[in-house]
Amino acid sequence: MIRTGGRVRKSSTGYDLTRLFIGSEGTLGIITEIQLRLHGIPEAISAATCQFQDMARAVETVIEIMQIGVPVARIELLDEVQVEACVAYSQLNHLRPLPTLFFEFHGTPAGVAEQAAQVEALALDNGAEGFAWATDADDRARLWRARHDAYWACRAMRPTYGALITDTIVPISRLADAVLGVKADIEASGLLAPMVGHVGDGNFHTVILVPPEEGGMERAWALDRAIVARGLALGGSCSGEHGVGAGKRGFLETEHGAGALAVMRSVKAALDPSGILNPGKLLPD
Amino acid sequence: MIRTGGRVRKSSTGYDLTRLFIGSEGTLGIITEIQLRLHGIPEAISAATCQFQDMARAVETVIEIMQIGVPVARIELLDEVQVEACVAYSQLNHLRPLPTLFFEFHGTPAGVAEQAAQVEALALDNGAEGFAWATDADDRARLWRARHDAYWACRAMRPTYGALITDTIVPISRLADAVLGVKADIEASGLLAPMVGHVGDGNFHTVILVPPEEGGMERAWALDRAIVARGLALGGSCSGEHGVGAGKRGFLETEHGAGALAVMRSVKAALDPSGILNPGKLLPD
Repeated sequence: MIRTGGRVRKSSTGYDLTRLFIGSEGTLGIITEIQLRLHGIPEAISAATCQFQDMARAVETVIEIMQIGVPVARIELLDEVQVEACVAYSQLNHLRPLPTLFFEFHGTPAGVAEQAAQVEALALDNGAEGFAWATDADDRARLWRARHDAYWACRAMRPTYGALITDTIVPISRLADAVLGVKADIEASGLLAPMVGHVGDGNFHTVILVPPEEGGMERAWALDRAIVARGLALGGSCSGEHGVGAGKRGFLETEHGAGALAVMRSVKAALDPSGILNPGKLLPD
Repeated sequence: MIRTGGRVRKSSTGYDLTRLFIGSEGTLGIITEIQLRLHGIPEAISAATCQFQDMARAVETVIEIMQIGVPVARIELLDEVQVEACVAYSQLNHLRPLPTLFFEFHGTPAGVAEQAAQVEALALDNGAEGFAWATDADDRARLWRARHDAYWACRAMRPTYGALITDTIVPISRLADAVLGVKADIEASGLLAPMVGHVGDGNFHTVILVPPEEGGMERAWALDRAIVARGLALGGSCSGEHGVGAGKRGFLETEHGAGALAVMRSVKAALDPSGILNPGKLLPD
């Protein structure tokens, strides 16, 4: 039983075991207790949506916002397929089935207004339409509720289908290539796969709807592999936040290289010499 | 030769080797190349100083600023001894030898003004005097130059003395206890030790001026140990940023516990089985 980290904001005393255990998926030990740092609720919060005829310009808007350094709390990108699903499922009737950005701003009232004005100007320069504000807490909650229900909105499009969620992340500067490339991959696959992304991080997901027919799952996995390969080729990672588990072990050598993988294996062997901690997960055989 | 991390903002694929190597002080491998993330220069920067009759109220101001969540870019605390040294060395003639806070604010012009007004109000409520602004880049540079020269200002107080720098960090909520306790430790030691801190992190240093006489170094080390012990007792770390090296190895078991230290030793043995990487550093014998 060990305790790692502490209440200090930084420290330079020894190996950072907290970070070693985060993302180790139970392969180095079992986490029995977690203390989280709490963040205050901002004095002011506002949210906005805007829509684009063209996915490329939606992504370009995100890149410009990040590059100019506007401290937006959340930016979510939904493609036209995902918006169509959300409109149907969550009655977001003010939205049309177009590529759409959701924003949330945190700060003081003046700071939030300033951030929002900067973002609106950048978005309008990129051809954004229907910039709509939700400063009212109920409107905001409804908007984000719809975002959180995006998975169920996808499932509702094809209730008899299965679902496979992808998880790609690329450097912000490659986000346009990644998103447009993945859209092309989806098109080529012939599958239905709405896209939604936490694009302020360069991270985005698709929900591949898996046809309930022979070979359906294989087609979905093939699309997932194509999406991962595209992200890795752009300097990305095969998982932004969902982890490796069993399914993504095969991509780790491509992403990290054989040497880094050998170091990970040494660490695993040192902390779990009998190989009893979540065997068969994270590291490739 | 391995490469860790990457250009993505986050990833959840395998053990975080970058964080494992940061702060490992050459005991796990030799870092041959580093890529850093660049941050843009803020649109607006302003700086301010204010002074307090009472150290406790200077620290209380810092705690309130952090707790209210004002995103101050830098807060530095200099005690009255350090300010006296800086005034003499860097001709900061607008300052009196009193506990002093230096602030820097980053953001948009309106955001910076707003942060600064919040901080000024909190400081005045705590009895701050002589709130002075330095929006001009030259004035700001001169102020921070003086801060960066603080070590040399200390040395200039007693040119024939040596110097031993301490490095303590505590949770922000314990900062007042830590700072006032360390001031008392210095007083009790009979040594001269100006204090300067990056207190927005809960981190502060003293420069113990070491008398060039028999037993002088031992007295300085004794004070250093007292300061570390006080920080650890308040839930702190024995080093906020300077690292362990040889000098602080003895505190690691108290800070992390025997179990965590055993895990660190396993990692070290796995990556450096022959014990040839910076031997005798970081981990206690």
